[in-house]
Order: sequence, then structure tokens, then C-alpha cells
Amino acid sequence: MEDMLPSDTTGFSRTRGLFIVFTGHGKGKTTAALGMTMRAAGHGMKICFIQFIKGSWRYGELDAIKRFSDCVDFYVMGRGFTWKSKDIEKDRAAARKAWDFAVEVINSGKYAMVVLDEFTYLPLYEIVNVDECTEVFRSRPEDLHIVITGRNALPEIIDQADLVTEMRMLKHPLDNGVKAQRGIEF
Amino acid sequence: MEDMLPSDTTGFSRTRGLFIVFTGHGKGKTTAALGMTMRAAGHGMKICFIQFIKGSWRYGELDAIKRFSDCVDFYVMGRGFTWKSKDIEKDRAAARKAWDFAVEVINSGKYAMVVLDEFTYLPLYEIVNVDECTEVFRSRPEDLHIVITGRNALPEIIDQADLVTEMRMLKHPLDNGVKAQRGIEF
Repeated sequence: MEDMLPSDTTGFSRTRGLFIVFTGHGKGKTTAALGMTMRAAGHGMKICFIQFIKGSWRYGELDAIKRFSDCVDFYVMGRGFTWKSKDIEKDRAAARKAWDFAVEVINSGKYAMVVLDEFTYLPLYEIVNVDECTEVFRSRPEDLHIVITGRNALPEIIDQADLVTEMRMLKHPLDNGVKAQRGIEF
Repeated sequence: MEDMLPSDTTGFSRTRGLFIVFTGHGKGKTTAALGMTMRAAGHGMKICFIQFIKGSWRYGELDAIKRFSDCVDFYVMGRGFTWKSKDIEKDRAAARKAWDFAVEVINSGKYAMVVLDEFTYLPLYEIVNVDECTEVFRSRPEDLHIVITGRNALPEIIDQADLVTEMRMLKHPLDNGVKAQRGIEF
């Protein structure tokens, strides 16, 4: 995008925290959020990265993000994939608790950026009311950047966002019988 | 995507290096490649990240990637934005030289992953013949993962890739008069 940015926009614009969404069924939503975290950390920003869906395949990220422990606080919340669970109510309660924690983090004033990874499922499955979400995002500290990822971001979320990218899967290696690989898929 | 992966695919699949493309006009192509680099580094893989288009706004990434200097070799090639230059021939020569370097890196056997960031413009603008590109990718070491990013990936590249994600821009903050921000856009 960089080539599209005007070189001087100070005359007609303002600086404030952005609300950024990576959605769609394609790969790269979480990896884009990680890359964005990495870039912001490179600028010395303080970031809180909250992962809403727990998954054991993520040790690649977990190991990597430790290198940023001076400026990135990383939390894994939730219990796994809600829609596959045999104990939906426990999962919903865990997700709800994760959201309450995120609200605290957002309003803490401690961070320049808060990433809510795989968050879209919470309003989608009505674990949290979408109007409650948008109100929290709307009333956040003015300079705070929020990044959310996940499939099927609701229209209310899209409407509120400043920057929305849809990742579309054009091709997937499982189509060709190639199995999931360490360091790539997980 | 992780929930789509079968839990056991060993019976009908194989492990080999993947050819991965992030394209489209949306945000997050380079950040996804950075996130993927970070994840692979977390697994202790050795990665070479080659940036084909030089740009001074990238110090956020540059600072961040230094934290991975034990496993990521990072190179900035080229001279800036080819299509804006007053000296096209020098730019083309620099890009061509960057490609020759990338070919060496790909065939060196030193890396588990090679990232060619903003590479798509080279075959697009015929700085490198697309058939030459696909031949280099095809004949790469079997276990090597290649990740390329950039807008308008040519059909020949898409056809060859195992995994292709198109980043689509649904909304951009400049639409709302918000200026480019340190740690976010650059």
C-alpha cells in the first residue's frame, strides 16, 4: 500500500488510534497481526496480544513472541474451538471471561496497540453482544490501535473499522494432498 | 484455517517445501510474510528474507527483525519504487541483480524458508522473465519453503503456488482523512 500514501497529509488529516480488521477465510490473518505486532514493537510501542482461541499448534508463534517480551504482553485465553466442543457452556464462559479481560486491557492506558486474535467468533456466536463490542472499541483511549482477526467479521465490526482486509483463499495445499507442516501451518 | 486441517493426513500425503503467495491490493501481505518468518523462526528454522523494494519507512520491521538475527538473514535489495523512478534502467538492473542473488540463496541449501518480499513486480514488469522464475521455483531444493508477496501476481505464479491468499482492501483509513502512522503503516 505504501506507494498509495500521500507524502504529506498533515494539512488535512489527524493522527489517532486505528481500528484494524483482518478477516476472510484465507491464510495470513493471525500472521499479519503478528507481523504488525513485530513492526510496532520495532518502534518501541507497548503491545498486548490476546489470543482468544487456544491451540497447541501455536508453539512456533509462542517461541517467537518471547523475543518481544520486553514490549509485548501475550495472553492465551479460551479453551479451544468452541464449535467442536462437547461442553459449549464452559467454552462460552471462558470466552466471555477472555472478553472481560480484553476490556480491562483496552481501557488500562498501558498499551499503544491491543491485538484480539480470532476475536470475531465471539460476537459471531453471540458470546458477546456485538453492540457491547463496538461500544468498547468506540470509547477506547484515543491513541490506542486495535487489531482484530478472525473469519466472518460482522457488518457492525466492519462498519466501525478504519482498515479492513479480507484474506481470500485462492488455493490451499491440502487440495494437492500435501499435509500440514511444522513452521508453516502451525 | 487450522480447524480445517485433518488431524491425520499421513496416509495420503507427503511433506515437502511449499510455495506460498500473498497477493492482492489489500494490507497485510508483507506483514503476513513477516509473521510467517517469525513463526518459522520460533521452530528454529533458518530463514532468508529478501526485500526487493527498498523503502525508508521500514525501520519498524528492520528493528524487529534484528531480534531474529540468529536464524533470519535479512537483505534489502533494489533501489525504491521502480515505477516512480527517473532512472528506470538503473532500477531494472538493481532488481535483476536482486533476482540473481535470490536464485543463489534458493539453491544454496542453507535455508528452510526463503521469503521474496514484493517480488511479484519483477515478472510483472518483465524485469525477469516469468518462465525463468517458475523454473527456479520448480527446481528448488525439495524441502525449501518459498514465500512471495506483492500485488498482481501473474497467473503463471499462481498456477505454480501451493497456497495463495489474496488480500483484498475493503476499507482504508485514508478514506477518512486519517494520515499514515508510525508503527502501523511504516
